[in-house]
Amino acid sequence: MTSTSDSTGAAVRADGRATDQLRPVTVTRGWLDEAEGSVLVEFGRTRVLCVASFTEGVPRWRKGSGEGWVTAEYAMLPRATNERSPRESVKGKIGGRTHEISRLIGRSLRAVVDMSALGENSIVLDCDVLQADGGTRTAAITGAYVALADAIAWGRRHGHVTGGKQVLSDSVAAVSVGIIDGTPMLDLPYVEDVRAETDMNVVVTGSGKFVEVQGTAEHAPFDRAELDALLDLALQGTTELTRIQQEALAREL
Amino acid sequence: MTSTSDSTGAAVRADGRATDQLRPVTVTRGWLDEAEGSVLVEFGRTRVLCVASFTEGVPRWRKGSGEGWVTAEYAMLPRATNERSPRESVKGKIGGRTHEISRLIGRSLRAVVDMSALGENSIVLDCDVLQADGGTRTAAITGAYVALADAIAWGRRHGHVTGGKQVLSDSVAAVSVGIIDGTPMLDLPYVEDVRAETDMNVVVTGSGKFVEVQGTAEHAPFDRAELDALLDLALQGTTELTRIQQEALAREL
Amino acid sequence: MTSTSDSTGAAVRADGRATDQLRPVTVTRGWLDEAEGSVLVEFGRTRVLCVASFTEGVPRWRKGSGEGWVTAEYAMLPRATNERSPRESVKGKIGGRTHEISRLIGRSLRAVVDMSALGENSIVLDCDVLQADGGTRTAAITGAYVALADAIAWGRRHGHVTGGKQVLSDSVAAVSVGIIDGTPMLDLPYVEDVRAETDMNVVVTGSGKFVEVQGTAEHAPFDRAELDALLDLALQGTTELTRIQQEALAREL
Amino acid sequence: MTSTSDSTGAAVRADGRATDQLRPVTVTRGWLDEAEGSVLVEFGRTRVLCVASFTEGVPRWRKGSGEGWVTAEYAMLPRATNERSPRESVKGKIGGRTHEISRLIGRSLRAVVDMSALGENSIVLDCDVLQADGGTRTAAITGAYVALADAIAWGRRHGHVTGGKQVLSDSVAAVSVGIIDGTPMLDLPYVEDVRAETDMNVVVTGSGKFVEVQGTAEHAPFDRAELDALLDLALQGTTELTRIQQEALAREL
Amino acid sequence: MTSTSDSTGAAVRADGRATDQLRPVTVTRGWLDEAEGSVLVEFGRTRVLCVASFTEGVPRWRKGSGEGWVTAEYAMLPRATNERSPRESVKGKIGGRTHEISRLIGRSLRAVVDMSALGENSIVLDCDVLQADGGTRTAAITGAYVALADAIAWGRRHGHVTGGKQVLSDSVAAVSVGIIDGTPMLDLPYVEDVRAETDMNVVVTGSGKFVEVQGTAEHAPFDRAELDALLDLALQGTTELTRIQQEALAREL
Amino acid sequence: MTSTSDSTGAAVRADGRATDQLRPVTVTRGWLDEAEGSVLVEFGRTRVLCVASFTEGVPRWRKGSGEGWVTAEYAMLPRATNERSPRESVKGKIGGRTHEISRLIGRSLRAVVDMSALGENSIVLDCDVLQADGGTRTAAITGAYVALADAIAWGRRHGHVTGGKQVLSDSVAAVSVGIIDGTPMLDLPYVEDVRAETDMNVVVTGSGKFVEVQGTAEHAPFDRAELDALLDLALQGTTELTRIQQEALAREL
Repeated sequence: MTSTSDSTGAAVRADGRATDQLRPVTVTRGWLDEAEGSVLVEFGRTRVLCVASFTEGVPRWRKGSGEGWVTAEYAMLPRATNERSPRESVKGKIGGRTHEISRLIGRSLRAVVDMSALGENSIVLDCDVLQADGGTRTAAITGAYVALADAIAWGRRHGHVTGGKQVLSDSVAAVSVGIIDGTPMLDLPYVEDVRAETDMNVVVTGSGKFVEVQGTAEHAPFDRAELDALLDLALQGTTELTRIQQEALAREL
Repeated sequence: MTSTSDSTGAAVRADGRATDQLRPVTVTRGWLDEAEGSVLVEFGRTRVLCVASFTEGVPRWRKGSGEGWVTAEYAMLPRATNERSPRESVKGKIGGRTHEISRLIGRSLRAVVDMSALGENSIVLDCDVLQADGGTRTAAITGAYVALADAIAWGRRHGHVTGGKQVLSDSVAAVSVGIIDGTPMLDLPYVEDVRAETDMNVVVTGSGKFVEVQGTAEHAPFDRAELDALLDLALQGTTELTRIQQEALAREL
Repeated sequence: MTSTSDSTGAAVRADGRATDQLRPVTVTRGWLDEAEGSVLVEFGRTRVLCVASFTEGVPRWRKGSGEGWVTAEYAMLPRATNERSPRESVKGKIGGRTHEISRLIGRSLRAVVDMSALGENSIVLDCDVLQADGGTRTAAITGAYVALADAIAWGRRHGHVTGGKQVLSDSVAAVSVGIIDGTPMLDLPYVEDVRAETDMNVVVTGSGKFVEVQGTAEHAPFDRAELDALLDLALQGTTELTRIQQEALAREL
Repeated sequence: MTSTSDSTGAAVRADGRATDQLRPVTVTRGWLDEAEGSVLVEFGRTRVLCVASFTEGVPRWRKGSGEGWVTAEYAMLPRATNERSPRESVKGKIGGRTHEISRLIGRSLRAVVDMSALGENSIVLDCDVLQADGGTRTAAITGAYVALADAIAWGRRHGHVTGGKQVLSDSVAAVSVGIIDGTPMLDLPYVEDVRAETDMNVVVTGSGKFVEVQGTAEHAPFDRAELDALLDLALQGTTELTRIQQEALAREL
Repeated sequence: MTSTSDSTGAAVRADGRATDQLRPVTVTRGWLDEAEGSVLVEFGRTRVLCVASFTEGVPRWRKGSGEGWVTAEYAMLPRATNERSPRESVKGKIGGRTHEISRLIGRSLRAVVDMSALGENSIVLDCDVLQADGGTRTAAITGAYVALADAIAWGRRHGHVTGGKQVLSDSVAAVSVGIIDGTPMLDLPYVEDVRAETDMNVVVTGSGKFVEVQGTAEHAPFDRAELDALLDLALQGTTELTRIQQEALAREL
Repeated sequence: MTSTSDSTGAAVRADGRATDQLRPVTVTRGWLDEAEGSVLVEFGRTRVLCVASFTEGVPRWRKGSGEGWVTAEYAMLPRATNERSPRESVKGKIGGRTHEISRLIGRSLRAVVDMSALGENSIVLDCDVLQADGGTRTAAITGAYVALADAIAWGRRHGHVTGGKQVLSDSVAAVSVGIIDGTPMLDLPYVEDVRAETDMNVVVTGSGKFVEVQGTAEHAPFDRAELDALLDLALQGTTELTRIQQEALAREL
């Protein structure tokens, strides 16, 4: 569980990756038979099912606006983690972490959606973590974007989305970065995540602009230079994720 | 969506099956990396993830009894069905149907477990429906049995289950049967389920004894002869499912 | 608490009944002053108040259908049982067993109601157990049918139910059966219920057709012959209950 | 629904009672077979089942104090009232009125209990309104006292309550009074209750001392003279109720 | 914490007050910048923020009646008391005491409001206890009346309340009284409240009529003479509080 | 509500502040009489009551660790905002935003606490927003730090915190920054907050290191240069807030 240095002086991680290397990422579209968009996204052992449900109409408070709505709900299966956690449905309430991540995913996707081009239609993104090994929220955002794109295409094919305007103004992807033993690293699995002094989730558009930057000093406050290094690393990671999303969407469904 | 008759007079179903034929059934063990038992079970398009979590110790009310405990929780992902349903965690309470099926799965598994041979250990079976096309509770029981067997084997390998006694006294599987247009049929997908006059779920041990018989007249009360025909069909189906479970468990994990 | 055999070889039960004999059953109509139908039903010491509330109109999802709606809610007073149980209103949620029985009662009654003959009217059956000594759900169904019949008659007298069609296509009653020390027995009180190897609740129409068959192996799976014996016994019991219902409804209210 | 005057100038009420007359009151002890105390109390058509459950031991916060605990829970069956109300268990929370009355009943009973004479035992009073026609909380207190007395006697007979001290220092009863069309009246049924300008519930000990005085100006604030008249009337009513309680307790159970 | 007697024989209280003396009372209007009425009321160390929110329209069940609606919600900040209490929002339900006081405040204010003069407008009074030292409910009523008066004036200035009729038919104030060591005392702080044999909250209009009288025997039932003495003391206190309210409302806002 | 430019070309804000200027900030210690630490903090019209409750002992999961625990709960009074919001206690659950901010405040404070120096003691920070005009979470963090410092000093004075180690390794303060019409601005009130293209909350220690960086593109993704400008502005603001905290803590309590 240590990150040592190889002969070239570069840190080597427990899973053999370079510090600036993503885990193997796969994006499987059409994972369900009925949903308008459904993607199984994997960042290493982290496995999230992202499903987009397209419905005509919008919530009451948005009716008559001519604009659509996109929202997200994140959840974990009870045994996604190494120890089983009680179900939030059984506890009768949703925890703070779940709320926070659901809101983050929703905001991140809305940043690239032109709501008037979507028209009065709603898309809900359900991101259910089947297996968790760090980075579940960033995997969820990355996969949810692809499911969203499929659902919008479905809406256009079925005549619910009309007009010449693009609904998606850009793409969006996310990655985690952190500082471990003083070294900035990209895309942390669970064993690295718990050791990180600082942990940051960064959401970036396909054109390289920031949508969200959330950095937290888990064990030690960080200075401006460390922040800069983390941002560099994150941009490198989201550039690669954007390419993987494009390739996935280019494939025949 | 009609079931017609072929030249031999036998009813033919929308998916081409004979009336006494199961859908294609697959049982994939070890679907998750960490859980003590994890099975993806598929009955046609119905897909349920059954995960067994083994923990030492038992609930407070059972402490000191020398006996173990097995329980189950069933749930559906919001978009498992054709139209998205709101999450029970968001609604803040679990519906009647969810409760009912969770209790059924738990009772069915406990019927084949020797609690004193298990010792003071607990196993929770989480059955999460990823995609629903009829028969989710029977698929869940059938898959959960295999996950349970794997978790018990894990407990023995890790020294938590000791002694020479078998923990599992038998195997258990379940199938749905129903009467459609007067014809008894085996293993109903959603389109048949909604049309069935009578719907029955039958849970049977590997040795052919009944654990649960739940028959409901959805549209028309049924007579004793119809009940007998349904029971015959169900026993035929669970015999086949028992064979599939055995084959799955015979494979190297 | 033992069931011994008398000289003729027939099992004798703790309360002196033959194995195929019901407990004393009483059905008291008009137990409340205002409700459209209200019945106190007693199966031995089990005492359930079944109240039918008739209201014009139907739930939103059924409006404009021309059809009515019948539903049921089951509950126990906290000290119905031998030890006081906490109120579900205080716990803030309804337990699985309560849900399950409420759903069973509703389904059983709907099986004999012609919803279009009822017209757009709703009837709620509240079945509150005042004292529990086994068989509360079967007593509830048996009593609720009588309260339902009274409420429908009320609706006709007050001009809410019109047209020449019968609303009730049949009557419905229910009884429990079980196998104790290898002997099938009818209508189990609490002391027998906890000892039963197999427990079955059977809901049958006045014309002798099954509406629900719910058999559970509490301690030992049961074979086909045992299942057949239980079904025979249940049909004998519901035939007697149907007669008691008819006599009750024949009396002046 | 009007209260007119007869030739002597005294107000006559819709049900023919004099202004200072109680409705017919009945107190039926031993209404359930198992509970340590159980009373069906009727004030006219108002019918409340008051059940006392005796258990050894006290809540955690009172352990080791040598003192007992008495508490109460009040509830209405859904169709106790003229129109059905939704169950609080289904709504998932208890309303303000229910809480308030439960607390009132508990306080009223505790006022006559010597907790150290009770010893470390707990008694819960469940007051369930089967039919409501005004005055449910006062009927509940009046009936609950009798159930409480029976439960304490049970505790003594079974050796849980020991020592020579009386547990009950006094008896307690309650009645409602109100001003209708300027006339103070005793024991209001529903039709009078909704018309009352002022409504008061008074809880009084057998020796004529006040335990609770709760007066509310429903439609018009009241002056000191009116308050005095209401208190006089209430004391007259509770004197009569005390006598009825004594007679009930004097009967063989 | 003792109340001794001075040389004149009059009881002296821990804080030096005479038995018939209020604590220092301050009423600060306009404590918030945006609310239609906002008052910080202080009875000694007890400090309650009373905020009146005026909105056009009424709840659904009152629409078309031509009448308005006034309601109140009472709550305590977690550390208002000497030991921190868990938040009711975190516990997920509101306790009985909170419900009871909210209902009392609402009823007390409605007693002096002419709902048809208010027209179809709603006013919610939020009474949040910032610091609690006894008498929080009476302080809340006293302060809420002033906030209500300001909100009604706001409604008139902004053209929501029209017509020549007065909305407020009277003013309303409240005070606690109790018997401590046999001596009736006015306006009890926490240290006296816990020692009181009898505790009474009295709500009185500016013209000296009773709106609510709630007396509870905390440790010993009280007789008629004691009740009379408490009522006298309460009327003296509310007369003084009425004067303080009038002075506060006479000041420029 | 527009930000224009003055003759020198610098943007001028609706409230006359320069773009890099904080609103008037006041920190009032000892606002409550009993709490171990209590601070009313004001950022312009935003007013937050921050109360620190010190208790001996730690939650169960931390017992025996020798370490303390610090947590926070954030809430808004219903009329803190311009329109009244329903209470979360009445709704029966806490919203996502509330959870998220509570967690942020807790993390921010824990970043400067040496838990082993605190010993097995717990401090809860209640941050209740009395009036909201933007920046409530940053005001809450800034005020809560001061209340925390007072509570720790109280713990030391009363002998609960012992040993020579400093409990607080640094101070912590927070401020919001945002881009409005392309111009980065410091400490946004509500009217600016809703117009901001990008909104960022930054939590910084007294020594100038980052604890949290949370930037969100509300209307337009932001580039690296904009992010850098916002971080510069935030550091300038927290430097000033740190000075205000030090001055407040230097005053006699």
